[in-house]
Amino acid sequence: MRIEAVDFFYCAMPEVLDIGDGSQDLLLVRLRAGPFVGWGECEASPLPTIAALVCPMSHAACKPVRASVLGQALETPADVARIGDLVRANSADLLQADHALSGIDIALWDLLGRRFGEPVWRLLGIARPEPRLPYASVLFGDEPQETLAKARAIRAAGYRAAKFGWGPYGRGTVEADADQVAAAREGLGPGGVLLVDAGTVWGEDVAAARERLPALKAAGATWLEEPFVGGAVSAYAALAAESAPVALAGGEGAHNVWQARHLIDHGGIGFVQVDAGRIGGITPAREVAGYARARGVAYVNHTFTSHLALSASLQPFADHPAGALCEYPAEPTALAVEATRRHIGRDVDGMVRLPEGPGLGIEPDLEALRRYLVPVEIRVGGQTLYETPALTG
Amino acid sequence: MRIEAVDFFYCAMPEVLDIGDGSQDLLLVRLRAGPFVGWGECEASPLPTIAALVCPMSHAACKPVRASVLGQALETPADVARIGDLVRANSADLLQADHALSGIDIALWDLLGRRFGEPVWRLLGIARPEPRLPYASVLFGDEPQETLAKARAIRAAGYRAAKFGWGPYGRGTVEADADQVAAAREGLGPGGVLLVDAGTVWGEDVAAARERLPALKAAGATWLEEPFVGGAVSAYAALAAESAPVALAGGEGAHNVWQARHLIDHGGIGFVQVDAGRIGGITPAREVAGYARARGVAYVNHTFTSHLALSASLQPFADHPAGALCEYPAEPTALAVEATRRHIGRDVDGMVRLPEGPGLGIEPDLEALRRYLVPVEIRVGGQTLYETPALTG
Repeated sequence: MRIEAVDFFYCAMPEVLDIGDGSQDLLLVRLRAGPFVGWGECEASPLPTIAALVCPMSHAACKPVRASVLGQALETPADVARIGDLVRANSADLLQADHALSGIDIALWDLLGRRFGEPVWRLLGIARPEPRLPYASVLFGDEPQETLAKARAIRAAGYRAAKFGWGPYGRGTVEADADQVAAAREGLGPGGVLLVDAGTVWGEDVAAARERLPALKAAGATWLEEPFVGGAVSAYAALAAESAPVALAGGEGAHNVWQARHLIDHGGIGFVQVDAGRIGGITPAREVAGYARARGVAYVNHTFTSHLALSASLQPFADHPAGALCEYPAEPTALAVEATRRHIGRDVDGMVRLPEGPGLGIEPDLEALRRYLVPVEIRVGGQTLYETPALTG
Repeated sequence: MRIEAVDFFYCAMPEVLDIGDGSQDLLLVRLRAGPFVGWGECEASPLPTIAALVCPMSHAACKPVRASVLGQALETPADVARIGDLVRANSADLLQADHALSGIDIALWDLLGRRFGEPVWRLLGIARPEPRLPYASVLFGDEPQETLAKARAIRAAGYRAAKFGWGPYGRGTVEADADQVAAAREGLGPGGVLLVDAGTVWGEDVAAARERLPALKAAGATWLEEPFVGGAVSAYAALAAESAPVALAGGEGAHNVWQARHLIDHGGIGFVQVDAGRIGGITPAREVAGYARARGVAYVNHTFTSHLALSASLQPFADHPAGALCEYPAEPTALAVEATRRHIGRDVDGMVRLPEGPGLGIEPDLEALRRYLVPVEIRVGGQTLYETPALTG
């Protein structure tokens, strides 16, 4: 079969707030090949990503992403990898292309799975997906009391692990941050896995991050995530040298395999966090999962949006040891919840398991998503290059 | 003064060909502050970059680039750096933002220079810009005979250095590549500086690149550029270990300081090539120039477009030793030539010198550019977010 159509759909909450909640909009991808449809999601700013799909060619290595996907044969997983390589070569100078490719690669796997009636993890060569220990991923409260209440609620909801991030953390005093971390620990109880996300707040300032280590060690935090921007690998390495037993985690911004590998090879991280919706899809995410595992670095998904994205992000490391952590959005917007009819729930043992159904095993709820659809029209040189298509299956 | 307007203009040749010539379109940036205007250029796919400027906010770290620029105070070079930091923080998850910022940063420097009546290099703290040895940057011919003729013409035109790249190089046999390189050397004569650009053709395949080293060594090539994609730093390091006296060159795709630093720190390159129109502008390019110099790595501009872009790309290393190489577009399109009325010519000694005039010292030719202007209209949710403005000064 051949890819006959590639369509992007921009959905958003009626009001998008200036907070660190990445689930306020989403970019859905639909691929068609013969009678089959595959769905994916880009973790990306929707408008520039749509533009990357349809823009005019600038030169041989700066083509619209669509040009490397439409008409391509899709019969085997090798075709998915081949199409990704084509996009990376033909759109090498189009920065946003990796984000556009991400949702396309996911949809290619979904489409292939639906065609063969197999879950994506089986197409990846995984015999049985292992259960994951979900951590509730939430924002710090504005005050420690609010964080304490959130942590208690997370514990009461049965979570054994939680990550607190963004909000005021790293933006005030060292003492204020210590209070926040202590509040999170108190609310989770002594047995919970506590993770802290600094959201790149210190840029590449190792000294600022170092001051926060004592409180993290005292609270028994498992990791400190993104103390620095993703590229600042030497800063990661410097902090990692003194952070034990607190590990460093990072990599969510990686938009290709190499950036994740840099952090593993030169940044001293203990956990590499990959968003399949940014790194170029399931294919490169799976490559990083293998690379990390061979080097004793734990792979963790980065997911803050829908359960379609969650399924995609859990596939690449489904064969990693049972009980390994996975990010699990715990404060999703109505859009992220309603985006799919089925959800990847937590089982009675508190663990998360990948669906057994074909493809991603999770389908978008088109009726719901149509209510959030943001119409877009792009005209260049008098021609309409993009107009939001009808959101149908 | 405050930034009152940020406008992007998409210009393109009437026909854009599927060849490795990046001068077939350009994205011009105009900033206004009080009575002053500054101009810049993004080396970027125009449509996604316009979208990055104007897109709706997705969340706190995924805002349109415009939001971090409009209304900002601009009094000193420190303000330029501050605005760049704002964009990188507020648009951290918007991949295309670095390319959009690049032209804005350049225009901020131009604007500041025009306000104070000083050339940008003086604002950068450079007392006197040193002359550069320009290399003619051209594509390999389809056949060695064509390459030979090109090299002879370049030599006849007075160039003492030339770079051949893309085209068939790396896509056929080792022997065919050797013939191409030998033809280039023959045409340039024994005294000319010969540079070869593989255009990332070998991905991260060290063995394929290694096979080309004997011909490059035999021809006395000064560098082999981009044997691999920019992120494949370990492949660079492996090849660098056996390439001497041929140095490796790379870095043109770097869209932030860290990526260029990776190649310097871990890739073993001898030349770091930075495009000010991609890395985030003159500010981060200047940072890389200092970083490279301190480590004995030569900094070279990457420039394939207009002489406005050429001036911008020569500023960051204007104080590096006299006679250092600079890239000089030798086969520009009519658009790239007509984009500015004045050009940075080669002096009687064959060297290139930065203009002494305020700002970049090169102004866009608006009358000419209007002939190449591509009208764009972007509508989101029923609102027009972008419509090509009038191209006036």
